[in-house]
Amino acid sequence: MLYDVPFTNYGETVRYRGQGANRASRRGAVAALVRSVGPVSLRTPHTGSASDYVDSLPKIPAAAVTIEDAAMIHRLAARGQRVRVRLEMGAHTRPDTLSHNVIGEIRGRKRPEEVVLIGGHLDSWDVGAGAHDDGGGCVISMEALRLMKSLGLHPRRTVRCVLWTNEENGVRGGATYADSARAELARHVAVIETDGGVERPIGFGVRVMRTDRDTTTDSVRTDLAVTRMREIGRLLAGIGAQGVTADGGGADINAMMKKGVPGIAHRTTMEHYFDWHHTPADMLDKVDPIELRKNVAAVAVMLYVLADMPEPLAGPAPAPAHAANTTPARP
Amino acid sequence: MLYDVPFTNYGETVRYRGQGANRASRRGAVAALVRSVGPVSLRTPHTGSASDYVDSLPKIPAAAVTIEDAAMIHRLAARGQRVRVRLEMGAHTRPDTLSHNVIGEIRGRKRPEEVVLIGGHLDSWDVGAGAHDDGGGCVISMEALRLMKSLGLHPRRTVRCVLWTNEENGVRGGATYADSARAELARHVAVIETDGGVERPIGFGVRVMRTDRDTTTDSVRTDLAVTRMREIGRLLAGIGAQGVTADGGGADINAMMKKGVPGIAHRTTMEHYFDWHHTPADMLDKVDPIELRKNVAAVAVMLYVLADMPEPLAGPAPAPAHAANTTPARP
Repeated sequence: MLYDVPFTNYGETVRYRGQGANRASRRGAVAALVRSVGPVSLRTPHTGSASDYVDSLPKIPAAAVTIEDAAMIHRLAARGQRVRVRLEMGAHTRPDTLSHNVIGEIRGRKRPEEVVLIGGHLDSWDVGAGAHDDGGGCVISMEALRLMKSLGLHPRRTVRCVLWTNEENGVRGGATYADSARAELARHVAVIETDGGVERPIGFGVRVMRTDRDTTTDSVRTDLAVTRMREIGRLLAGIGAQGVTADGGGADINAMMKKGVPGIAHRTTMEHYFDWHHTPADMLDKVDPIELRKNVAAVAVMLYVLADMPEPLAGPAPAPAHAANTTPARP
Repeated sequence: MLYDVPFTNYGETVRYRGQGANRASRRGAVAALVRSVGPVSLRTPHTGSASDYVDSLPKIPAAAVTIEDAAMIHRLAARGQRVRVRLEMGAHTRPDTLSHNVIGEIRGRKRPEEVVLIGGHLDSWDVGAGAHDDGGGCVISMEALRLMKSLGLHPRRTVRCVLWTNEENGVRGGATYADSARAELARHVAVIETDGGVERPIGFGVRVMRTDRDTTTDSVRTDLAVTRMREIGRLLAGIGAQGVTADGGGADINAMMKKGVPGIAHRTTMEHYFDWHHTPADMLDKVDPIELRKNVAAVAVMLYVLADMPEPLAGPAPAPAHAANTTPARP
């Protein structure tokens, strides 16, 4: 079964890659081919997590085909021609292995127990170098701290940089961080994910959820965060990075956000991001050094002010339903 | 040796592919790598004739590397890192084999011995389908005749469509046609090459050379041709294809032009042509059917009027220096 679905936006179009094999398997297909999830192609295959397999159905192979090849197969089939495709695939699933998040921080001057966290993910798809997804995001996050240090800035709260592992096929770096830091999360004032590429920065999105039992937006805390971040954003108007919208998030910070931590997405224009994303073209030549520096500036300013302002971004965290201390009381 | 030369225009940049291996060999290189000759890349290798080898130098392998890989090797070398490249190449030279030009014509109503020729080349690089280079050109040329026939148009002169073989690595189709038709060439009123892709048509270029002993432009005959073609071009202003410049030519018609035949290049915007040309991306999805039809219209109108107007385009051919009849007089 071939899914030849034109790209509209990533969220909408990537579903054919995520669910395509299962849907095809249910209809008796022996394999699923999915048109590469991107807006343009120079015969460019696009990789990514290919199927949320379910155990109740045969797990059939799923592969990306380029836009050009999807169009060709489509044309041949449309004129009634019998199309035979021979699939030779190198992809396979290996057993789990040990991997690490990489963490560094500048301890807070006044309230070291309060944390403003920033990070990108260290892993990338092997077809390219992962320059935009997410090497650039890792560099932005590290550079924001380095810049602060080199300028002798020492904010009130701790700023912590986390480079997550395994964002691309399981998000276990993000989940493990949230779990191992669970006792600290009420004192995580904000978490910023830099995973939107390294094109021209346009600003930030922010969102506060209630809890993992009620993941709707806490609009009171979100509105407060938006108002404060818009004030900070005025510092970034000179490079056009002042935009703040009420819709933050990110794969790696999602588990923390579900515990009520305010989540911030760093945003760029993403004009060409999906031309390169998950393809062999995601290489360093696609990164404009000037735009990279603007991204570092935007994020460093936001990070510093969030860590140094007297009040926590979205006000104090609500009291937990039960004690955060998970060590059971034993005799 | 790596040539990491940014694309300016094809003629200027392709020289590194054409002469790179020889120049590298002269300096003791074991292989030549040439940055793909195009303006953009999604890790897109670009093929084409790779070297005009000379016998006096070791014939070293020459390969294209993508813009991204050329940049990476360049960066590594620039920081003093030793770069090792392992070349595995499938390209090889096979013995010559029989191949054919494909020829069709509509015989002229009044002067069948006078010919207006049009054609593209049937061969293409195997990495893609050759949709723009030069499948589209073949379709334009064939369609121009088909359209004339379906409209019941029967011009004064013969219109002949030639689909040349072997443009890409030797131009022997063009040379063989010129040789086998040599007795007729003085009555070839004009030859049009459609090998400029299938983007929006903008017009034509025309040039008349003196002879193969003096390949300078015959400016009197060229100017006459430009003037007349600009008049015809007014019919094409509605689709923007009225431009006529004094600089025609084409690989397949070059041998004929050297015998004094007026040569015409069909022109398109070529806005994206070199994004796709000689790459795996030169596929049918890159052809806009509306633009293809405009190209057919532009070329069909030009072809018909050239074949039907009373005077030959560039005036009568000059008398040959010696008789064209090559059959020796024997007792």
